[in-house]
Amino acid sequence: MRAKLAQQVESLLPAAVADLVRLCAHPSVSAQKLGVEECARLLASMMEEAGLSTRVLPSPEPGYPVVYAERKGRSPKTLLFYNHYDVQPPEPLGEWLSPPFQPTKREGKLYARGVADDKGHIAARLAAVKALLNADGELPCGVKFISEGCEEIGSPGLHKFVEEHKALLAADACLWEGGGVDWQGRPSITLGLKGILYVELECRAASRDSHSSYGTVVPNAAWRLAWALSTIKDRNERVLIPGFYDGVRPPTAAELAAVDALPAEDEELRRSLGLSGFVLGLRGSAWHRKHTLEPACNICGMESGYTGPGAKTVLPSWARAKMDFRLVPDQQPLDILAKLKKHLAAQGFEDIQVKARDANEMPARTSMDSPFVELVKVTARDVYGVEPLLVPNIAGSGPMYLFSHGLGLPIASAGVDYPDNHIHAPNENIRLEDYRKGILHLAAILDAFGRA
Amino acid sequence: MRAKLAQQVESLLPAAVADLVRLCAHPSVSAQKLGVEECARLLASMMEEAGLSTRVLPSPEPGYPVVYAERKGRSPKTLLFYNHYDVQPPEPLGEWLSPPFQPTKREGKLYARGVADDKGHIAARLAAVKALLNADGELPCGVKFISEGCEEIGSPGLHKFVEEHKALLAADACLWEGGGVDWQGRPSITLGLKGILYVELECRAASRDSHSSYGTVVPNAAWRLAWALSTIKDRNERVLIPGFYDGVRPPTAAELAAVDALPAEDEELRRSLGLSGFVLGLRGSAWHRKHTLEPACNICGMESGYTGPGAKTVLPSWARAKMDFRLVPDQQPLDILAKLKKHLAAQGFEDIQVKARDANEMPARTSMDSPFVELVKVTARDVYGVEPLLVPNIAGSGPMYLFSHGLGLPIASAGVDYPDNHIHAPNENIRLEDYRKGILHLAAILDAFGRA
Repeated sequence: MRAKLAQQVESLLPAAVADLVRLCAHPSVSAQKLGVEECARLLASMMEEAGLSTRVLPSPEPGYPVVYAERKGRSPKTLLFYNHYDVQPPEPLGEWLSPPFQPTKREGKLYARGVADDKGHIAARLAAVKALLNADGELPCGVKFISEGCEEIGSPGLHKFVEEHKALLAADACLWEGGGVDWQGRPSITLGLKGILYVELECRAASRDSHSSYGTVVPNAAWRLAWALSTIKDRNERVLIPGFYDGVRPPTAAELAAVDALPAEDEELRRSLGLSGFVLGLRGSAWHRKHTLEPACNICGMESGYTGPGAKTVLPSWARAKMDFRLVPDQQPLDILAKLKKHLAAQGFEDIQVKARDANEMPARTSMDSPFVELVKVTARDVYGVEPLLVPNIAGSGPMYLFSHGLGLPIASAGVDYPDNHIHAPNENIRLEDYRKGILHLAAILDAFGRA
Repeated sequence: MRAKLAQQVESLLPAAVADLVRLCAHPSVSAQKLGVEECARLLASMMEEAGLSTRVLPSPEPGYPVVYAERKGRSPKTLLFYNHYDVQPPEPLGEWLSPPFQPTKREGKLYARGVADDKGHIAARLAAVKALLNADGELPCGVKFISEGCEEIGSPGLHKFVEEHKALLAADACLWEGGGVDWQGRPSITLGLKGILYVELECRAASRDSHSSYGTVVPNAAWRLAWALSTIKDRNERVLIPGFYDGVRPPTAAELAAVDALPAEDEELRRSLGLSGFVLGLRGSAWHRKHTLEPACNICGMESGYTGPGAKTVLPSWARAKMDFRLVPDQQPLDILAKLKKHLAAQGFEDIQVKARDANEMPARTSMDSPFVELVKVTARDVYGVEPLLVPNIAGSGPMYLFSHGLGLPIASAGVDYPDNHIHAPNENIRLEDYRKGILHLAAILDAFGRA
């Protein structure tokens, strides 16, 4: 990257760390309604300070405002940054080595709730903008920031917000929240997320429980549920819902090669979970391919009848299961929901109700052929000095499709994370060296995007 | 029956009701450790008053004493009465129309906790003994009473007690606790009980829960349990454990005919449970045959993962189910347990542990050809004026096999019950007319047994 730009980043670094400390010192726990609106105002003032034109926009659903900021650049092209300024609850407090909202430096790391997820990314992006303005007096391209306040509670309202602000959010590419390096220091660029369908199955077999001696004749909701579940996925991990796999877009050769190039993580996870092995004996790249590129059908919980200590001889009248389906492109949650309902009815389980929660999400995956992906990759190689990894999609879910599908943007990630960042857990942290490199990479991306 | 004997019963009746009131006024809640030992002493004194030689014997396991009483008779033959003097907890107290331990007469009924289960039977049997002594100055046959104090908590120690007191308990036949008339006033004579095997299945698939996005690769305990359960019983209600049905003794033609003669109860139960139908569409005598003569395999409860409100995306590391198997002659609990374990291992479910509770029970069924059954039936027909019903076994379980197998006794029931007696529930009651007829029948049984 340009020496002048790199120099600006270096001289800005102490102020960028101070900004991050200021942002993390302010609680913004959406699940606990703690400080979120005040944090939105703080963030807006920091965006103004960075030279951005900023508005605090109300959420269309009950929830916290969206902080929107923008600035035009030399090029007509615009890069959109998606972030969130809310954080997870800090509990359990006793496990923090320093107070969660009192950002603390130790051994080259900065500890605070939200420092990695997601305030470190916001502050790094603002620092990159400032460095470019200091270096050139103008930005190489237009930038737009959308920072929501409800990500940690499932982004209610974001769908509607994006729908209602398509013109405001119009851009040429999007940098997603998160992103960073792996254990070996290689930048890892994520291009997608899985979708999710979350359902609750409820069997009501009778109006009340019976004495278990009626197990000969009275329909038992727990049996009904166990049988129904066993028709949904078999012991070979094959989902048996007709048409379930219809929407799965076959991965490209490039996607398969990218997944095969990912560093092995199965053995470490196996030990950490105390497993003798994974399902189907999967290891290495077969493990990675299934985990990354195939949908999952998971039982999150089951409950029926008596579950206390000792023996109770009861025949349960109801049984419930919670399930989630992690979907890959181009599976669609509502299509899978319809197929699940049809399957259960066809199997004779009309006594089982399927309720889906509202907040289901579509899968999203940007093509590895996208020039924007190439740009993020090339600049990463330049800044980090190693070949970056490309992840077609991670196994988790999020609202990325609102931007990739809804706004038609190529999306990639670049940021300040590393694997031991303890997000959603006590002692959340980033390494300050990752923060420095992340800012350099973000500045290089903006610089290259203006020239592309 | 002999007019002189019937007359003695009638003149004893007020005192017999007073005795029952005295016994029921004394709480003896084994589960709550409430008054049980004092009630044993009260019962022993009432047995002494009735002219029986009585001993209060300690239980071999931690628990309450057995009240043992005996008296020789004219004939060398001896009839053994099995009863229990402990009662169920009276809660919920607010639903009782009169206090549970303040026996109260209303509309020809006597209400009290334990009046039907099982103190009414004890008092009726003592009244029959007294009537015979009043009429003849001696008993027509020997009698022995064994009244335990732990029946409502699963009879811990009864197995050992019977084992250790075989000589003391030696007899020629046994009258079981319970017995009475059906809704149409027909005496119903029960000859058996099902056995029971109670197990807990526990799957441990990992050392801790995972994020549900690992549903592609990490073994899920809830799935493992659902699949394992579906290999135990199929949707046609067939138990799939190899050899499960091997021990089932085919019912005799007389047993089938007796079951077919039982009054229909399926339609009333169907309505009460709000069912559209029973399993396999069973009705009428097919319903009765399956319910009475076939074993049951029941899930009592299931638990795994997250079962609270809303959605949690978790992959559970453990799952548990509680099950009971109701067994018919000559199935044996420990044999079924071994077959279940072997089946799960053969199906590849080595990760599922099977724990059986100690208090499993063998099935028991006295032959309908037994002369003692004929005696109870003939005397019932005489006293009640209608043809009695014979029930080869009820669907519930109990320690009857300790007496039928352990002591080699034919066993039948005769007593003071009717279907609306609310045992184990608020407003437990018997009808005083059933009490009168029950005492007559018991006296007639003893009289005939001495002459047989």
